[in-house]
Amino acid sequence: MAQPARPKTHIAYHTQDAIYVRGADLVNDLIGKVSFSEMMFFQITGRRPTPAQTALLDAVMVTLMEHGLTPSVIATRMIYVSAPEALQSAVAAGLLGVGSTFIGTMENAVQLLDEILSAPEGEQTRAKAIAQRHRESRQPLPGFGHHLHKPDDPRSARLIALAREHGTPGNYIRALETLAAAVDEVYGRHVTINATGAIAAVLGEIGFPREVMRGVAVVSRAAGLVGHILEERNEPAARYIWDLAEHEVPYEPGSG
Amino acid sequence: MAQPARPKTHIAYHTQDAIYVRGADLVNDLIGKVSFSEMMFFQITGRRPTPAQTALLDAVMVTLMEHGLTPSVIATRMIYVSAPEALQSAVAAGLLGVGSTFIGTMENAVQLLDEILSAPEGEQTRAKAIAQRHRESRQPLPGFGHHLHKPDDPRSARLIALAREHGTPGNYIRALETLAAAVDEVYGRHVTINATGAIAAVLGEIGFPREVMRGVAVVSRAAGLVGHILEERNEPAARYIWDLAEHEVPYEPGSG
Amino acid sequence: MAQPARPKTHIAYHTQDAIYVRGADLVNDLIGKVSFSEMMFFQITGRRPTPAQTALLDAVMVTLMEHGLTPSVIATRMIYVSAPEALQSAVAAGLLGVGSTFIGTMENAVQLLDEILSAPEGEQTRAKAIAQRHRESRQPLPGFGHHLHKPDDPRSARLIALAREHGTPGNYIRALETLAAAVDEVYGRHVTINATGAIAAVLGEIGFPREVMRGVAVVSRAAGLVGHILEERNEPAARYIWDLAEHEVPYEPGSG
Amino acid sequence: MAQPARPKTHIAYHTQDAIYVRGADLVNDLIGKVSFSEMMFFQITGRRPTPAQTALLDAVMVTLMEHGLTPSVIATRMIYVSAPEALQSAVAAGLLGVGSTFIGTMENAVQLLDEILSAPEGEQTRAKAIAQRHRESRQPLPGFGHHLHKPDDPRSARLIALAREHGTPGNYIRALETLAAAVDEVYGRHVTINATGAIAAVLGEIGFPREVMRGVAVVSRAAGLVGHILEERNEPAARYIWDLAEHEVPYEPGSG
Repeated sequence: MAQPARPKTHIAYHTQDAIYVRGADLVNDLIGKVSFSEMMFFQITGRRPTPAQTALLDAVMVTLMEHGLTPSVIATRMIYVSAPEALQSAVAAGLLGVGSTFIGTMENAVQLLDEILSAPEGEQTRAKAIAQRHRESRQPLPGFGHHLHKPDDPRSARLIALAREHGTPGNYIRALETLAAAVDEVYGRHVTINATGAIAAVLGEIGFPREVMRGVAVVSRAAGLVGHILEERNEPAARYIWDLAEHEVPYEPGSG
Repeated sequence: MAQPARPKTHIAYHTQDAIYVRGADLVNDLIGKVSFSEMMFFQITGRRPTPAQTALLDAVMVTLMEHGLTPSVIATRMIYVSAPEALQSAVAAGLLGVGSTFIGTMENAVQLLDEILSAPEGEQTRAKAIAQRHRESRQPLPGFGHHLHKPDDPRSARLIALAREHGTPGNYIRALETLAAAVDEVYGRHVTINATGAIAAVLGEIGFPREVMRGVAVVSRAAGLVGHILEERNEPAARYIWDLAEHEVPYEPGSG
Repeated sequence: MAQPARPKTHIAYHTQDAIYVRGADLVNDLIGKVSFSEMMFFQITGRRPTPAQTALLDAVMVTLMEHGLTPSVIATRMIYVSAPEALQSAVAAGLLGVGSTFIGTMENAVQLLDEILSAPEGEQTRAKAIAQRHRESRQPLPGFGHHLHKPDDPRSARLIALAREHGTPGNYIRALETLAAAVDEVYGRHVTINATGAIAAVLGEIGFPREVMRGVAVVSRAAGLVGHILEERNEPAARYIWDLAEHEVPYEPGSG
Repeated sequence: MAQPARPKTHIAYHTQDAIYVRGADLVNDLIGKVSFSEMMFFQITGRRPTPAQTALLDAVMVTLMEHGLTPSVIATRMIYVSAPEALQSAVAAGLLGVGSTFIGTMENAVQLLDEILSAPEGEQTRAKAIAQRHRESRQPLPGFGHHLHKPDDPRSARLIALAREHGTPGNYIRALETLAAAVDEVYGRHVTINATGAIAAVLGEIGFPREVMRGVAVVSRAAGLVGHILEERNEPAARYIWDLAEHEVPYEPGSG
């Protein structure tokens, strides 16, 4: 096997008295001068964000931080009471839930938008075809529908309006709205754009790399989970939920 | 066993058309109006941060995001190439390294500062006693010393200066500097305040709950790790490191 | 939304003086009477294994435990030195690498075998079609090929021979061998059945539920990783690998 | 900094046509010839176990595999429904709960036994001193007491009896029983040896390395969790528990 080329990193290096991230001096150019979201955008893309990009990344991360006692939060609280000496384990356990069911559809949603934006036959025609093929195969349409927030997910309209206010290019938002119109027509009823769909479009607008979009949810949820760990410490709920589970999911003979 | 009191949560709830976090309307009061760091502080403490608190939390998180090919980064890259379909797993694997060795000393450092601040015999006396007991027991002193950044960790001075600029109460910074002076005297040589020590003091200044201080590192590192995942995807290094490890850590008979 | 039916568990329950697993009394019927593999089969399937099933599950787990300084092992060692107080975190980090790249193909392999076994047009015809469609689409064929073990993976022949010795039904082994013959013909060269392919067939032979086959690798690797943690504790290698990575993957300006 | 000595590994290596673990040929000497527990003992210690060591390691692992809907199990089920494509993540999430609260006391228990065994003033004197210092400081005594299994944990007597049957050296069992007698005397009431205490003694008897004793629980629980994943797939309970948690842990204004 031929020796593979020696890989490089373009992210960071340090000397005895300085640390450089993406070519910038961490101490003199970044600490105290950029916000967390600016730093995150810079770390991931290698480009300094515009004010609009920062504002929209902030908006997306504020949207994603918290949604009550979700499965991720329950996992985090269970692990925290089991290993309170390792806060990072409790956060990691919850983050493992940022998977295909609740958040990962972000990636599928942005793929549909890319498909629409690059369709030679025109965006509306492709949007309609996408709606039809999902309806026929009875598969969930990524970015659409919400079991709780009906008729409309309030976060979606807000995020789309913010992108407009900040004057982003607008193509991903347009593709999303084109798809939404096609969905309502093909399904014969109104289906909400959900938060995941709006987030996929807004992250597309700001040029956030689609390959790691799920990472935005991971970072934001990490902060949300830290809040739940502190609450669990001060007002324990995990053992109560554990008791509930034991009593409400009773044993019954038989193999599953 | 008496039935335990039914626990409550004070963090979030949702209705069909709204989500409330810490009593604020997510869509109308938070999205587009607060930055990620403001939201994080609010989520965790239940209090809206002052501009100084936000600026210093941003500064700490910018400081912690990235430090090159650390053990956490190597773990994340190894897991990413093994399970590229689950980005969240790769981040979680790296975050599990935010433990006692590299970051967790933050908690021990803030405990020392609290010990100094509440010492009936005076801060300087207690600081000297702390330095002496660590020196005598040859235990590392949390918040002091760095194997690479000598004589001084450049991040520490920057963070302390920022806290001063923002006019924080100043007690944690004072305790840290009192301890630093005692350390230099007791050890008979200059030992740097490291980034972890400075961060503990700055987070103390802004009233960040000490029980979950490690969570700040977890959130910030999560963003750093997402950057490495994207780089690993575009310019793979993990297999090269794996090959290096196999060749440079050879097998030798014998039991370890 | 209609109230969902109250779920049940069929696995375990306990009283003040006894624990029952799958209906058996843990203390009197299981501890000291069944081996780990017997217990594992019973826990997962609800059925007591035959001696042949136990022997083959043991053989598969012995096969999977260890393969040197793999990405999983490197991740485990990196996390162990970062958080030595939480051994479970180091194991968990490594297990997160039991994903689609190295192990998860077990699931895809068994799907191909099921496809062959249920093909109305005959097993050989379907096997050839499977080989052709993978060759044409230039996709890797799950269960076949190994970058290191050529021309044949020595584990595969051993596992298949063991299944024969134990007189299992033989249909999965037959399907695997039928596919192997088709592969050699269609590709015009010999491609080895790899360990993952043989394991998929052997686990199929013993009726191990295909939905959780990957779990066998997870359990076995967990034991392997504990061995590496002990070695890392006694003869540290992680910091050496970290140094290697920092030196051999140098920084270079540019965005990736 | 002086170049550190090049580390070695004593665990495994492979050639093109063979894999060696601890010096043994995996394919010809281990697969089909040793059970999982024998292989695990060999992998971790580098020594082939005696039949007694194998039997007792099996007994301990059978004891630890399953205990109903524990916090670990709940975490695993929550993550499984969130990311069903990554079974390994669900197992890893649950394993992160093998921490100080429920299992990790194994390590503290064995330390007490070692303390007794090496006490120059005699085992009984030291046992009594240990009981007294825990009682006075009102700290839980590792290896003793169980909130559910009273007056005696049925697993403990069974494990101790098995160790006797197998004719182990007996010193750890003796130390445990000496401590148990001292506990009953000092506390003025009977306190059960719990499973963790008995397991610590039995693992001490078979020479299992104390530094990684927690790893035995990690491996065994991994198998238990795979059983719950299969049940969750076939008879979902996680969403029901999630609903329960949302309803039974209501929101209330106020900061925690």
